Amino acid sequence: MGKIIDGRAKAAEIKSALREEIANLKKKNIIPGLATILIGSDPGSIVYVNMKQKTCQELGIYSEKITFPESIEAEEVEKEILNLNKREDIHGILVQLPIPPELKYILDLIVPYKDVDGFHPENVGNVANNNEENAFIPCTPQGILSFLEDLTDLKGKNVTIVNHSPVVGRPLANLLLNRDATVTVCHVHTINLQQFTKNADILITAAGVPHLIKADMVKQGVIVIDAGFSRVEGKIVGDVDFEAVKEIASHITPPTGGVGPMTIAMLMKNTVKAASLSLE
Amino acid sequence: MGKIIDGRAKAAEIKSALREEIANLKKKNIIPGLATILIGSDPGSIVYVNMKQKTCQELGIYSEKITFPESIEAEEVEKEILNLNKREDIHGILVQLPIPPELKYILDLIVPYKDVDGFHPENVGNVANNNEENAFIPCTPQGILSFLEDLTDLKGKNVTIVNHSPVVGRPLANLLLNRDATVTVCHVHTINLQQFTKNADILITAAGVPHLIKADMVKQGVIVIDAGFSRVEGKIVGDVDFEAVKEIASHITPPTGGVGPMTIAMLMKNTVKAASLSLE
Repeated sequence: MGKIIDGRAKAAEIKSALREEIANLKKKNIIPGLATILIGSDPGSIVYVNMKQKTCQELGIYSEKITFPESIEAEEVEKEILNLNKREDIHGILVQLPIPPELKYILDLIVPYKDVDGFHPENVGNVANNNEENAFIPCTPQGILSFLEDLTDLKGKNVTIVNHSPVVGRPLANLLLNRDATVTVCHVHTINLQQFTKNADILITAAGVPHLIKADMVKQGVIVIDAGFSRVEGKIVGDVDFEAVKEIASHITPPTGGVGPMTIAMLMKNTVKAASLSLE
Repeated sequence: MGKIIDGRAKAAEIKSALREEIANLKKKNIIPGLATILIGSDPGSIVYVNMKQKTCQELGIYSEKITFPESIEAEEVEKEILNLNKREDIHGILVQLPIPPELKYILDLIVPYKDVDGFHPENVGNVANNNEENAFIPCTPQGILSFLEDLTDLKGKNVTIVNHSPVVGRPLANLLLNRDATVTVCHVHTINLQQFTKNADILITAAGVPHLIKADMVKQGVIVIDAGFSRVEGKIVGDVDFEAVKEIASHITPPTGGVGPMTIAMLMKNTVKAASLSLE
């Protein structure tokens, strides 16, 4: 049976290191500050924003929640972001996704050095240009990368990613190419997914399709990272048929307590980084 | 035998359409202007810059060549770029690559709306975020994409790219993901390249390794785009063993007159686009 990757333990390690950094910043009179903008009342989004706020409190990061109704005029959100861009007590700005498509452009209004989600084109471009030190790396890909770097040398590894969104699959592909892995990006339009998953030394999936990945789709000894998330009859289910695939994998994330906790830990890390950069 | 893709004919078509656009711009008193910066005296770079200038003249685009010695201070180049950023008669700025590594940062000083090479992180990020209309698309990938869109619907196609640089492989991967292809990016650290090339409906290579791709590495009916370029005993040789592979491919670019002419045509297209945008 493969080793279960413990996301909660790893996230706790990261947060413990951050506590020290935050204490050092406080000595320099800096309290890292994160503003979250929530538009509408999607129940999932509310849960996520609250979890982020709670983790901020836990670590001693100042957090501010700004809530707009679904029907908000774009100019109101714009005005708020431009104001947050200027505020010295706010180092990170996060707009909780999903947002209405006609508001998507507001993400690009966040100044790149406060873009702790790493979605601003300048941050995205710096990652793609193999210039990571000048970028905020998106949280979920950064968390996944941190698991992988603990486990293996990525150079020359065959990695298959099942997700081609700008939030997970694409930044991950660039991060892995920066480390000289061979990368295949699959998605809902891929024909014969199995031929790509079966070949992978490392399989990362974030499709949101319950039990998409079965035991006969992976090879012996594969590392499996499951960032998929669905609810089936009230139970949280990943993209991977965990019980069956764990018998074949060398390492595998569980359906809960895997990638999730890392995403929030990395958001905190990016916020502390933004606060540190404000000193320069 | 596969059909030979005629890059010269396709480039001529594009240039002919551009001539019309340029005539229309002139009616509005705009003459598109391209500045090229050449640092050092690499013979290849000199040839490329001259070809770009010649094509500008052919089309009625104003062009200006700025040349610095290899030993130039970074601040001098910086000053020149900041000046070109401001000039109203210059719509596109191109720094001929390669440049000394310590000068690489100057590429990011070009304002994104004059970055006709498409290497500025903001342009790169907009392509990666599937927001192409707000980006300049790098010239070689844009030329390759234009071939492919003439030949096939990219959705669900298996594409293998042999190049993982920010100049060719990565922007191409993003452009193809934007069109829902399944994309594998290979490179010098890939183990068992053949397993990835053999599976491809479309194979794009830019490795600069003469005859890296042999007939037994591709499948029947593949589309082959060869952007590789080497000199062997004074002769120009691509990455693909053209004579053997053309018997298996459905479409294939020749070692010369394939991707090359398209790269320059797309630079002209980006320059005219930059001039048009200056009217907005």
